[in-house]
Amino acid sequence: MAGSSFGTLFRFTSWGESHGPAIGVVVDGVPSLIPLCEEDIQYWLDRRRPGQSKFTTQRREPDRVEILSGVFAGRTTGAPISLLIRNVDQRSKDYEEIAEVYRPGHADITYDLKYGIRDYRGGGRASARETACRVAAGAIARKILGPEVEIRGYMVQLGSDRIDRDRFDPAEIDRNPFFCPDARAAARWEEQLAAIRKAGSSIGAVIEIVAKGVPPGLGEPVYDKLDADIAKAMMSINAVKGVEIGAGFAAAELRGEENADEIRAGPHGPVFLSNNAGGILGGISTGQDIVVRFAVKPTSSILIPRRTITKDGRETEIVTKGRHDPCVGIRAVPVGEAMLACVLADHLLRQRAIAARR
Amino acid sequence: MAGSSFGTLFRFTSWGESHGPAIGVVVDGVPSLIPLCEEDIQYWLDRRRPGQSKFTTQRREPDRVEILSGVFAGRTTGAPISLLIRNVDQRSKDYEEIAEVYRPGHADITYDLKYGIRDYRGGGRASARETACRVAAGAIARKILGPEVEIRGYMVQLGSDRIDRDRFDPAEIDRNPFFCPDARAAARWEEQLAAIRKAGSSIGAVIEIVAKGVPPGLGEPVYDKLDADIAKAMMSINAVKGVEIGAGFAAAELRGEENADEIRAGPHGPVFLSNNAGGILGGISTGQDIVVRFAVKPTSSILIPRRTITKDGRETEIVTKGRHDPCVGIRAVPVGEAMLACVLADHLLRQRAIAARR
Amino acid sequence: MAGSSFGTLFRFTSWGESHGPAIGVVVDGVPSLIPLCEEDIQYWLDRRRPGQSKFTTQRREPDRVEILSGVFAGRTTGAPISLLIRNVDQRSKDYEEIAEVYRPGHADITYDLKYGIRDYRGGGRASARETACRVAAGAIARKILGPEVEIRGYMVQLGSDRIDRDRFDPAEIDRNPFFCPDARAAARWEEQLAAIRKAGSSIGAVIEIVAKGVPPGLGEPVYDKLDADIAKAMMSINAVKGVEIGAGFAAAELRGEENADEIRAGPHGPVFLSNNAGGILGGISTGQDIVVRFAVKPTSSILIPRRTITKDGRETEIVTKGRHDPCVGIRAVPVGEAMLACVLADHLLRQRAIAARR
Amino acid sequence: MAGSSFGTLFRFTSWGESHGPAIGVVVDGVPSLIPLCEEDIQYWLDRRRPGQSKFTTQRREPDRVEILSGVFAGRTTGAPISLLIRNVDQRSKDYEEIAEVYRPGHADITYDLKYGIRDYRGGGRASARETACRVAAGAIARKILGPEVEIRGYMVQLGSDRIDRDRFDPAEIDRNPFFCPDARAAARWEEQLAAIRKAGSSIGAVIEIVAKGVPPGLGEPVYDKLDADIAKAMMSINAVKGVEIGAGFAAAELRGEENADEIRAGPHGPVFLSNNAGGILGGISTGQDIVVRFAVKPTSSILIPRRTITKDGRETEIVTKGRHDPCVGIRAVPVGEAMLACVLADHLLRQRAIAARR
Repeated sequence: MAGSSFGTLFRFTSWGESHGPAIGVVVDGVPSLIPLCEEDIQYWLDRRRPGQSKFTTQRREPDRVEILSGVFAGRTTGAPISLLIRNVDQRSKDYEEIAEVYRPGHADITYDLKYGIRDYRGGGRASARETACRVAAGAIARKILGPEVEIRGYMVQLGSDRIDRDRFDPAEIDRNPFFCPDARAAARWEEQLAAIRKAGSSIGAVIEIVAKGVPPGLGEPVYDKLDADIAKAMMSINAVKGVEIGAGFAAAELRGEENADEIRAGPHGPVFLSNNAGGILGGISTGQDIVVRFAVKPTSSILIPRRTITKDGRETEIVTKGRHDPCVGIRAVPVGEAMLACVLADHLLRQRAIAARR
Repeated sequence: MAGSSFGTLFRFTSWGESHGPAIGVVVDGVPSLIPLCEEDIQYWLDRRRPGQSKFTTQRREPDRVEILSGVFAGRTTGAPISLLIRNVDQRSKDYEEIAEVYRPGHADITYDLKYGIRDYRGGGRASARETACRVAAGAIARKILGPEVEIRGYMVQLGSDRIDRDRFDPAEIDRNPFFCPDARAAARWEEQLAAIRKAGSSIGAVIEIVAKGVPPGLGEPVYDKLDADIAKAMMSINAVKGVEIGAGFAAAELRGEENADEIRAGPHGPVFLSNNAGGILGGISTGQDIVVRFAVKPTSSILIPRRTITKDGRETEIVTKGRHDPCVGIRAVPVGEAMLACVLADHLLRQRAIAARR
Repeated sequence: MAGSSFGTLFRFTSWGESHGPAIGVVVDGVPSLIPLCEEDIQYWLDRRRPGQSKFTTQRREPDRVEILSGVFAGRTTGAPISLLIRNVDQRSKDYEEIAEVYRPGHADITYDLKYGIRDYRGGGRASARETACRVAAGAIARKILGPEVEIRGYMVQLGSDRIDRDRFDPAEIDRNPFFCPDARAAARWEEQLAAIRKAGSSIGAVIEIVAKGVPPGLGEPVYDKLDADIAKAMMSINAVKGVEIGAGFAAAELRGEENADEIRAGPHGPVFLSNNAGGILGGISTGQDIVVRFAVKPTSSILIPRRTITKDGRETEIVTKGRHDPCVGIRAVPVGEAMLACVLADHLLRQRAIAARR
Repeated sequence: MAGSSFGTLFRFTSWGESHGPAIGVVVDGVPSLIPLCEEDIQYWLDRRRPGQSKFTTQRREPDRVEILSGVFAGRTTGAPISLLIRNVDQRSKDYEEIAEVYRPGHADITYDLKYGIRDYRGGGRASARETACRVAAGAIARKILGPEVEIRGYMVQLGSDRIDRDRFDPAEIDRNPFFCPDARAAARWEEQLAAIRKAGSSIGAVIEIVAKGVPPGLGEPVYDKLDADIAKAMMSINAVKGVEIGAGFAAAELRGEENADEIRAGPHGPVFLSNNAGGILGGISTGQDIVVRFAVKPTSSILIPRRTITKDGRETEIVTKGRHDPCVGIRAVPVGEAMLACVLADHLLRQRAIAARR
C-alpha cells in the first residue's frame, strides 16, 4: 500500500528517480500469448519524449525501453513484464542550488515534511520523468484492449484560450507541437507560448482524452466506479488539479432534462442521443465514447524570482534555471492517454472475471 | 476487488439496496480505544437524512444506525465495526413501472448491461441511499482524525448561480436548506429551486469541502497521492461528474508565477502566501487547508417526459414519478465531507505506519 | 488491510463477536445470475452447528442465516451479499470470571497486548463462532465453483490415533459425529473422546480436505500460488497449527524419484500416476484432486486447573468452565471445506480474468 | 492481483526468469532514513548463492545486487527500492531438451496448462533463481525490524534423519554446508547426501526458522493472522509442501493441558512456561520466539529416468541433466529466513499504523 502501484488485476509498479541510473516499471497481470516487442512500447514513449520541440524541456533523453522479463519468443508469458529506461542526460549540477531551497509550487517541501529526506536531483521521484513509466505501461494496456479500443488525447485549452469545437480535426493533432485538433488554435498557441517562454514564465492547459470502442459493462459499483478510477488515474499525474467526465463541471449548470442522455433503439443495441454522461452511467461504461478532461497547472519552474524558504527555514528567493517546459500540459497528453488505457485494461480484466460464463 | 470497499488501512465495505430490508457498512482498521457510540454516528446521518426540507426527497427514513460489533464498553476494540440501517419507508410499487423501462441518465441500463439483472426497486444498489453508509463510515473516520481536523462542506453554486466569496459566512451554512455560506445566494436559490421543483425538473450544483488542521505529510507518491485518492472518493459519489483541488480548472488559465504559492517562514514552520495548491503538493499534504470541489449533475428523475427504450429494446417515453430531490447536490454535502474524512483517516494511518519511529 | 477480509476477486469480510447481537459476513465479487437462497447457505451452516452431539459445545445456536442484500428474485445481482446470523444463546455471565484472568492457550492475552482492550465475552472476536461466517461464505463459493467441483472434508486423526486408509469409506463420513471415513476408527474415537470429556480435558486432531474436479490452471505464481493461499486460509482458522499439501511433511523423507508424480497420456489429457503433489505444481492446479491436511490443537478451555496471570499481572490459576468442545477439530471440518471453496472460487475468477479470450 | 507481489504495507514485487537478462525486485513501503547500501543486501544473497559446496547447484552466479532507486546519500528515501541482479551463467542449451518434454514434479506442465506458453529455459519464472529476490527483499525487511529482532534458520531433518535437539548448537549452523545446528547430524548428512548425489537422486528436508525479539501485538485478526501470513509466505517458496507453527502437527496429539502454555508474571511482563504456540496466540505475536517449520520436497531434477509426456501428448521418458541440487532444502534456509523477515516487517508497519498514538 505504499503508493507506487496502480491497478488491481492489470497492475503496474513504477520506480526510479529523475537522476538515478534508470527508471522502470513492472507490469503484472498481463494475459499470456499477446505479441509484444520493445518497438510496441517505444512507439508511445517517443510521442511523450521531451526535446522534440522548443516547447518542451530540452533535456535530451533517448528513452529507450528494454524488456527484461515476461516476454518469450515474441509473446507475453503471463509473468510480470519488467521495463527499464536508462537515464542518460542527467545534469545533476543544475540542481545543486535547489538542494537547500524549496521551489514554490513543487513537491520539494512536502517530500521533506513527509520523509525527512529527499532526492533533490531533478525532482527525484516527483519528476515528470516518472510519467515515462506510465506511458510504457499504457502501451501494454493498449495491447490488452486490442485494436477495437481507440484512445486519443489532445489539448483543448492553453491558458484561457480554448479550441473551437467546430474546427475540430483529428488529423491536426499530430501536425503541431501541442496535440491540438484545431489548426487555428495551434497557430495562436505557438505565438503565445513563444512569448511565455521568452518571459521565463509558464502556462496551464486543459487536456481531453477520448476512448472509442469501449465495451459496455466496465466499472465496479460502488467505489471502484469506472469514472472514480479514471479520476484517480488522472489526478495522480504530475501537475493535474482537476478532472471531469462528459459534461463535467458544466453539468452543474444543466437542468435534468438537458443533462440526461435520451436513448433510442439502434440496430446493434441502445443508441444515446447525446453524451453528457461521458460514456459512464452509475460508474459503468455505456458503450459510448469515454470522455475525460483534466486541468494541468503551469509548472513552477520559472525564471521569475519567487519568495520561498530554505531547508533550515531561512527566507530567500528562487529562480529555477534548469531545462523546463513552458507548458507541461503538452507532455501530459500521451500520459493521460496511457493512464486511461491502464484503467480500461484493468476493468476489462475485472469484468471478464465475473462475466466469462454468461 | 469487487468494488464495494473503500480505503486501505481504514477500509469500509458497504452493502444493501434501496428497497431491501436494510443497508449497512463494515468499517475495518479502526484503532482500538476510541470512544464511540451510536449517537456519534447518528449526528452525521441526521445531517444527510432526506425529508428535512421541501428540497430533498420526501422519502421518510429515520436512518437509525445500530452498532452490531467492534465496540465494547463504549470504546472501539480494533475489531470490524458493523453498522446497520434498516429501510423503513420503501414504497416498491412506485418503482414497478421502471422495472421494464430504462430511465435516461440513470444506471438502470448499465447495471443490466453489466450484470444481466438489476434490482430495480428504488435504484437498488445505485440508489443515493447507499451514501448513508459513507456518512456513517465518515463519522468514524472523524473520530480517528480527532478534533484537530475540521471538515466542512457547503454548496458554492446552484445551476449557474455562484455564491459571492466576499459574503462567505460559515455560520450561514446551517441556517438554510442548501448548506449555503452566503445568505443572499441562499435566498435566491430558494426561489429558483422552488420554480424548478414546480416544473418537475432538477438542477446541478457545485460543492466545496474544506479540511482544516490536516497534518503535513499525508499522501503516498506516486499513484496513491492524497489528491488522487480524494478525486476517486468524490467521483465515486452518485451523480458527481467533476472534481478539482485548490485552483482546479482555473489553474489551467494561470501563469507559473501566479499559481505557485510562495513560502515564508512562520513561527511554527512554513507559511504559504496563497493556496492555489489546495493544500497538496506532489500528492502530499502541506499542512494548509485541503480544498476540494465537485460538480453534481441534476438528477434524471424528473416529471418531464424523456425518450428511452424498454428492457427488450422497444422505444418509449418515461416520466419518473417517485419521490425525488430537485437538487441532489444538497444531500451530497455531508457525503462529500464524509468521503474526505475517510480518505484523510486512511492516509493518516498510512503515514503513521512509516513515520512512527522518527 | 485490517485483516477482516479474505480473498481478492471473491472477497468476504466478516464481523461480529461471540456475545454481541449478531455476527455476519459481506461477500463481494459474486458473479450475477447465480440462483441463491437462504437454504443454500443454511445447509452448510447446519453441518457446522454446535450442540449436535455430546462431543461439541452445548451452546444452542440455531444459526439461522438471513440474506440482507445482493440477491433479487432468487438470483445474485453482482452486488455485495450481506449475511446476518443473530446470536441467541449468549450466557455472558459464564465469562465474567475470565474478564480479569488470561486463559492459557487462548488469545485473551494477545488481544489485550495488541489492542489494550478486549471483548472478553465468549472469546469475543477470537471465538470459534466467527467460523460460521466462513462457512456461509463458503456456501456461496461452492455456487461459483458449480457442481463439477466437489469438496469433502473428514477427520483422519484424533490425538495420535489415525484412520486406516484401507478402510476409507466416504459414506461413513456422515454416519458418525467425527466426520470420520473409517467406521472402526470412529468407534474407537467415540470411546476415547468420552473419556477425555469426562476428564475435563481436550484433544487435538488432523483434518483432510479434498477437492475433486478442480480445473487445471488455477493459482498465480509466484506469491499467490494456489497452495500458498490455501495454507493461509487453513492457518487462519482458529486453533490450526500446521498445514500440508499432498505428501506434505512426508515429502521431506522421499527421494526425488519417489516423490515426482509420473505422467502418462490419457484420453482427456495428461494422467498422473500418483498425487504426491496434492494437485498443485508450481503453485498451479494440475487437474488432479487438491489434497490438504491441517492440524488442530486441543482447545485450552478445560476443567483442569492451569497456571496463569490476571490482567494486572498477578499470578493465579484458572479452570475454564463454560460450554466447550473436547475436540474443536470436529467442527473444523466444515470450516476447512468452506475455506478451500473460497480459495478455489477466488482463483477461478482470477483465472477467468486472464484466460477468457483464449 | 497477478501474484508477483507480497505484503501489504511492506510490499515487494519480483520479476525475471532464470535465463533472461536479469531478475529483480521492487520493494515498496520502506520507511525513509534507514541506512542502506548494496553490501547490506549482498551479505544475505551470498548466504543463498549456489555453487558454494558440492551439495548445491554448480551454476556459478555472482548474484551481484544493484540498487537502482529509492536510496539517496546512503539512506532510504521512502521511494520504491529497485534491485537488479544480472543473470550471468545461463547455459540455455542445457534446457533445449525440456522445451518439448514435461519434467514430472516440475511446473512445466502447469505453466503450459495455465498460460498456453512457457519460458522453458531453466524453469523460467518457476526457477528457484526467483528466490534471490526474496532474499534481497528480506535484507531490507531486516533493516526495518532492526537489530532487536534476530531471525535464524537451520535444517532440522534431511530425509528421515532428524537432528538431536540435545546437541543443538547455534554456532554449528555456519560450520557445515547444511545450515545444521547439530554437528553429528551434519556429519551423517554429508555422507548420505554424497551417496544420493552420486546416485543421481535427490532428497527432501525440513527447515526451522526462529525469530527472537519480535514485539507482542503483531498480526491482524482474523484472516491476516500472523501465522496465516507466515504459512502463505513459506508455502509460496518453491518445493515447500507443509508449514507448521510451534508444536505444529504434533499439537494434534496433545491434550489441552499439555498444549496450553502456562503463564507466570515476569519482571518485564508475562512469561510463558513453554512455547507450543510458537509465539503466536489468536494470530497475534506473544513476544515469545516465533517458531516455524516447513517441509521441502526433493527436487524432481534427477538423473533417474521417469515416465512423462511431451507437449503434444506423446508418452516418453526423461532424465534431467542440467546442474541441480541434490537437496534444494539447503538453499531454502536463507529464503525461509527472508520470508519470515518480510512478514514480520509488514506486520510491524501495520501495527504501527494503529498503535502509534497510544
